[in-house]
Amino acid sequence: MAPPMVLDIVLLHYPVLNKQNKVIGSAVTNLDIHDIARVARTFGVRRYYIATPYEDQRRFIGDIVAHWRTSVGKNTHSSRGEALGRVCVVEDLEHAVADATARHGKTPFVVATSATSQSNEISYTALLSRLAGKAEPMLVVFGTAYGLAPDVIFSADGSLPPIAGIDGYNHLSVRSAVSIILDRLLGSGNSA
Amino acid sequence: MAPPMVLDIVLLHYPVLNKQNKVIGSAVTNLDIHDIARVARTFGVRRYYIATPYEDQRRFIGDIVAHWRTSVGKNTHSSRGEALGRVCVVEDLEHAVADATARHGKTPFVVATSATSQSNEISYTALLSRLAGKAEPMLVVFGTAYGLAPDVIFSADGSLPPIAGIDGYNHLSVRSAVSIILDRLLGSGNSA
Repeated sequence: MAPPMVLDIVLLHYPVLNKQNKVIGSAVTNLDIHDIARVARTFGVRRYYIATPYEDQRRFIGDIVAHWRTSVGKNTHSSRGEALGRVCVVEDLEHAVADATARHGKTPFVVATSATSQSNEISYTALLSRLAGKAEPMLVVFGTAYGLAPDVIFSADGSLPPIAGIDGYNHLSVRSAVSIILDRLLGSGNSA
Repeated sequence: MAPPMVLDIVLLHYPVLNKQNKVIGSAVTNLDIHDIARVARTFGVRRYYIATPYEDQRRFIGDIVAHWRTSVGKNTHSSRGEALGRVCVVEDLEHAVADATARHGKTPFVVATSATSQSNEISYTALLSRLAGKAEPMLVVFGTAYGLAPDVIFSADGSLPPIAGIDGYNHLSVRSAVSIILDRLLGSGNSA
């Protein structure tokens, strides 16, 4: 089996949009930590960065991860602890990129995600062939609340097309979006 | 565009397994209601049955759905209410099958899901061609807790293969599993 692709993900809580399209910082959701860590572990994502500028929120994530990585949580649900071992709490996207760069020895190709089409769109086919080439690590960026702020999208190296349903409805939870996108990129049939 | 396929889903809270492989009834999780309804709406699933034998739990689901379908919830998050309009609360799988049969005028082809391989496995390719044929409605069954009890799996018309990751780890949340499976069955490329 070929060596697995090098892919990290980051979940941003700032800068993201609210319902009125204003840039905000969102609160951390407990199930975002768990569900996404489990998908990341399943498909071989190297690191799951959770980014928030708020110190109390970073401490909250740290406490949850520690609960499942040690003592009671570890003994009752070891698979949870294993998944949460991929979590890395950071302040912002820049810190995630810096950590990924240091770990992989190369700046990652940064891919934004959005519920609407973006001008820097890159197709799944193109992204899959980049991934398969293994020439560079990849960092896929997800936004909480109403999605990534435009600055994040436009400063990325590319954006994935939105997950299309049967009509215009496009209101997936970020947990569902991450699950689907990682399956498309790393799931059976695509994985090397 | 061809008429969409006829697919319903059901989330069972009984009979499911606990960690010790014993048959139990599980408690309803709020985010299972929301996340799965939103994925179902996105991909054109006709009805999202939530099955539990416990009357207080059925009432709990009803209250949540009513909150988002009326008054404050509807006005602040109309897309939530729209997704939750697909929810149908039932006592058990039999009631879901009966309702689907009555609505579609034909007994649905029932497909179980599991985190392990089952003897009645049916491939995605086979299921997709059945779906595309549109000759019959389909009902995909998901289990909460540690998955569907063996009786449910063996009485189904077939079982989907487990979602394979990079190794043996297989601990996705049911929210992630539903998201991935519906994308594989109804997402872009597969949808008629």
